[in-house]
This record gives sequence, structure tokens and C-alpha cells, in this order.
Amino acid sequence: MSQIVPVILCGGSGTRLWPRSRASKPKPFLPLIGEQTIFEATLARCAPFAAPVVVTGAAHLEHVEAQLGASEAAIIIEPQARNTAAAIALAALRLPGDAVMLVCPSDHHIGDPQAFADAARKAAALAQEGWLVSFGIEATGPETGYGYLKRGEALGDLGFRTARFVEKPDLERATAFLAEGGYDWNGGIFAFRAATFLEELEAHCPGVLGSVWAAVAAGREEGARFHPDASAFAGAEAISVDYAVMERTTHAALVPARMDWSDIGSWESLHMARKRDAQGNSVNGRAELVDCQGVLVESDGPRVSVIGLEGVVVVVDGDEVLVTSMDGAQKVGKLGGAANQ
Amino acid sequence: MSQIVPVILCGGSGTRLWPRSRASKPKPFLPLIGEQTIFEATLARCAPFAAPVVVTGAAHLEHVEAQLGASEAAIIIEPQARNTAAAIALAALRLPGDAVMLVCPSDHHIGDPQAFADAARKAAALAQEGWLVSFGIEATGPETGYGYLKRGEALGDLGFRTARFVEKPDLERATAFLAEGGYDWNGGIFAFRAATFLEELEAHCPGVLGSVWAAVAAGREEGARFHPDASAFAGAEAISVDYAVMERTTHAALVPARMDWSDIGSWESLHMARKRDAQGNSVNGRAELVDCQGVLVESDGPRVSVIGLEGVVVVVDGDEVLVTSMDGAQKVGKLGGAANQ
Repeated sequence: MSQIVPVILCGGSGTRLWPRSRASKPKPFLPLIGEQTIFEATLARCAPFAAPVVVTGAAHLEHVEAQLGASEAAIIIEPQARNTAAAIALAALRLPGDAVMLVCPSDHHIGDPQAFADAARKAAALAQEGWLVSFGIEATGPETGYGYLKRGEALGDLGFRTARFVEKPDLERATAFLAEGGYDWNGGIFAFRAATFLEELEAHCPGVLGSVWAAVAAGREEGARFHPDASAFAGAEAISVDYAVMERTTHAALVPARMDWSDIGSWESLHMARKRDAQGNSVNGRAELVDCQGVLVESDGPRVSVIGLEGVVVVVDGDEVLVTSMDGAQKVGKLGGAANQ
Repeated sequence: MSQIVPVILCGGSGTRLWPRSRASKPKPFLPLIGEQTIFEATLARCAPFAAPVVVTGAAHLEHVEAQLGASEAAIIIEPQARNTAAAIALAALRLPGDAVMLVCPSDHHIGDPQAFADAARKAAALAQEGWLVSFGIEATGPETGYGYLKRGEALGDLGFRTARFVEKPDLERATAFLAEGGYDWNGGIFAFRAATFLEELEAHCPGVLGSVWAAVAAGREEGARFHPDASAFAGAEAISVDYAVMERTTHAALVPARMDWSDIGSWESLHMARKRDAQGNSVNGRAELVDCQGVLVESDGPRVSVIGLEGVVVVVDGDEVLVTSMDGAQKVGKLGGAANQ
């Protein structure tokens, strides 16, 4: 079997966990759960496989290199952000055609790394057969923030054909999916052979492939770093891999992955992904809680005292303090300019 | 008519509005309501009367002198805190016997200074006749944290004899007082002639008078400052003026004062004393509120963003952040050592 090469996509603008995450230091590079940063944890659970390829922007290169530690990763520095199809194409063009790419966002939490590795091996086995495989995350509620994958025909005991991709549904449809069964969330984790991906990209989005190919051809090596050519790369359409390839190919498959996954897309989901005490509170930093339930505290220094509250998020970071209900945390964007700082 | 001399009692340990107030900078010296500090506002509403006497401890002398501004106050520095009977006796012994002392705590808010001045003049008129006068604060609820004054026989149109002093009652009694009517809260504001006070102290608490007299006799002048003798003053019993004199004298009177009073004894009462916006929020410092009602924010620097909360207090001061329900603010003392910092 060919090698499994983790391709870790690193970037993001860092608005949903503001003010802890900022544009200058987004979610992957913060120790939000446990001692490791989310990026470090991503590297750790990919350690059973080959040395990874990290695709990142210049803005985050410093964080990436500082947190890579002893990992012998190849780093591809995107001249600008052009969404996931182009980012994955960069990595695909730098890898042997028969390598199985294990594409991982760097800003997800996976509580059961063994289950991840098991699912990755199944996905790789399907990828060897020419499938483009999505990881199917167990749909635990009628979430409207995720795409859904409908399971089709079983592919041995490895996974399923993907019968249908569903863009973020409204609540009614999401509820119906749950009731009907056979739907998973699309977690943005994929496996496919590099050659398969490039063939499918050629078939469905030849413009992106052309631009990325030119950017790689005119690129520049610098030790472990690879710099694609900026002007060629700028020509690539900014399109997600879902739109560009996964939803168009006739070889889409999925592997159900039950691995305690969270995209940590909000303070509430971070809270649920964390260890909580008997009162459901989770604390990172100096804090003291009295008569509290379901409270999340995150402080980068000052001591936080919380009394008599339920379901409240308190975040202290630099010169910003955020205090919000769990629900309200979705409205961080309503704050004047806050999420852009 | 003799002069009315404000005697402003300055001190306090600064625990109930922690972490904004600290032992090193208690409530009177903070601009909690509007631009002025509570002490400055106290001075301002006493400005219609004679130059004040400020009784304070060495720990707060720096704040007192910095905030006195152009006021020609006499300052008496207590060698140690010995409660209000001794503090008032210090001032009484330094004043002409016929001066009317207008004793004011320095940590109360009075929203209607004109009503205060009117009540003070009535109280002074009664004091001239030999009465020891308490200001009767309108009892607006069955508060169990205050003493109550029961009105007796009317004294012309100036006030009433005090028929009874009631120590902090339980809720049942407080509710009964409200239903019965004729009760005011004891706000700790008094008026009496210096000579009258000293006679009554002699009659009811001669030990305190003896110690304070010795402390003044052996005291030391230093410009506007007067330093009573420490070892003599240490002998004075630490007893409140209520216990020592007001509850024992047969000449107790009260003047009803309707002056938008608050003792700012909690974050909730500070919130009620402040100007609030249409959603009932009050903010001091940089803050942005979204979907909030009845929220109080106090920040000494960092920007505070609050989303989707009701009846919550957020205080940022130095390296301490307090987030609490209005009720919970009473439990600041439950925090390990917090209130002592």
C-alpha cells in the first residue's frame, strides 16, 4: 500500500473565538483544549502516517514553524488564500501520484485519535481503489451549520458510496435528515490519491488545476519550504474542494468516523469539547467560580471570578474582555469591528 | 445661628465593590457615579456650609488630600480605626462647642444635593435646640441591611422625635415596618451641636470621651492636619455613634430626607444609583453591549463586550475580573481571599 500523507490546511481568519483567537493568531495555534495547541494535536494524531505537508499562508508561517517541533513536515506557503481546492492541488502536485492524501483541517478537535487513525486507514484503502473519500461525522443534532452526506451503497466493510451532498440545510430539513437516518456531517476531512484528485480536478475545474500547475512549475524551494509563484496562483479560482471536486465526481465515498469530533466553531462547541467539572464548568487560566453551572472561562492572565451564573462565557485576552451567553457568542460579529481586531 | 460644620468620615475597607474598590483605594475615592469621586461629591454637597473637618486614617490621607482640591478642610488623622463614636468625638473636641456638626459618611451617593442641604438646615435648627438629629432616609423596600428609625411626636415642621431605634431587622419585621408606616432608614447622617454631643457621650460612654480627650490633648498640629496621640486613642472603645449615643439619649430626633440616597453598598445598588440607558444598562469605561438588559459594566481600561445577558455585573480592575449576577455580588466574600486584596 502506498504511503498515507497528511495534508494539513492551516489558516483561517480567527473570528468566531474572538477575542482569544485573532487574525494574527487564529484558532489552530492556541492551546484551547489541554496543553497542546489545536495544530499540535492535529500533527500528533497524524503521526502514525508519513511526514505531513502543511499548506499555510505567510501570515501564519511563524506559528506553524514554531509549533512543528521535530516534525519533518514539508511546508507550502500560499501566496494568498484561494480556498481549499487550490490549496489541496498545491500539495497534490508536490506529491507522488500514488500517495494517499489525508486532507485535514488544522482547527478541529478530535477526542479519539485512535478512531481517527482507524477511519483514516479505511479511507486510504478506498482511496487506493480510486475513491474520493469524505469522513462522515456522526450527526448528533439538527445542525444547520454543516453540510450533510447521505450514505449510499456499502463498499465492503470500509464505507459507503456518497449518495448525495447536501449544502447547509435549514432546521426543518436538518431535523428530517436526523429522523430519516443515514446522514453524516461533512467534516472537511478527505482521503484520495494525489493522481485521482488531480484527474478529477482536471475534469471538473481545469482552470484551477492550470493555475496551480503553473504556480508550482514557477515555484521556489527554500529548505523545507516551498513558495508557489504568486502571480500564477492568483489566477486560481477561490473555490472549495467540495464544490470543485467532491460534489461533482462520480467516485465519492464516505467513511463513517465516530471520533468525538468538534470543529470548535463557537465558544459553545469549545465548551462541549473540553473537560468539564461536576457543575459543567470549564476553565482555562486563573479563575474562581462560585455557584456557577455550565460556565466557560478563558483568561490569558488576569484572575476571573464568576458568581451565580449559568451558561455564560467569559474570555479575557489582552485588552479585550468578552462576556456572553453561550447563544450570544454567535453574535460576536455584531460588535463594532471587534472580530476584525 | 451658629455655623454648620460638615464632619466627613472617610475610611472603609473596600470589600463590597471589589475588585473596583480595594483596601488601598476604597469606594469614596473612586468616580463610581459621574465624573466626581464619591468623596468629591460629598464635599460638593457640603459646600453651602462651613469648611469641613475630614476624619480619616493614614492609609487614605493621600487620597483625601489629592481630592480635597481647593477646599480649606481641617484633616484629623485617626491613629487607628476606632469606629464612629471616637471619630466624631475627635472632631467635636476640635470645634467650638456651639458649632453644629453635620456628620456625613463619605461613601454615600445623594442624587438630590438641594434636598440634602434643605434637610441639613432643618436638622441644624433642631440641633440648635439641643436635639441629636438623625437623617431619616425614605424606606423604599423591606431592607434588612439597615437600621430603622420610628417617628414619634412632630417637632414643629422641622422633624420628629425618634420614638425608637431598631437594629437591622429580619425580613418579616422589615416588611411589617413598611406596612405600618412611620419608619425611616438610619442613613448614618447626623446633626448635633459639638457641646451637646460631648455631653451625651460623657453621660453614656465616658470611657470613649476620656480616651479621645487625652488623645486630642496630647495631639500634634501639622498645618491643616491634626494627629491625635496614638496610644491614648488606642484606649477608646470601638463603638458606633448609634450604640454609644443616639440610641441612649433622650433627645434623639429625626429629619425626613428625601434626597435620592444610596449607600452604594453593593454592585446592585450602584447600578440603581447610576444613570441607565433605555435597556437599563450602565457603563463606566470602554464597553459595547449587544442584546443586554440591566447590565452593569465597570472597566479601568480593557474594552468589555457583553452579549445576550440580563442582570449581570462585569468589573475589570487591574488583574482582576469579576463577572456576577446582581444577587451573586453579595457573595464576593466567598471568593478565596479576593475581597482582601
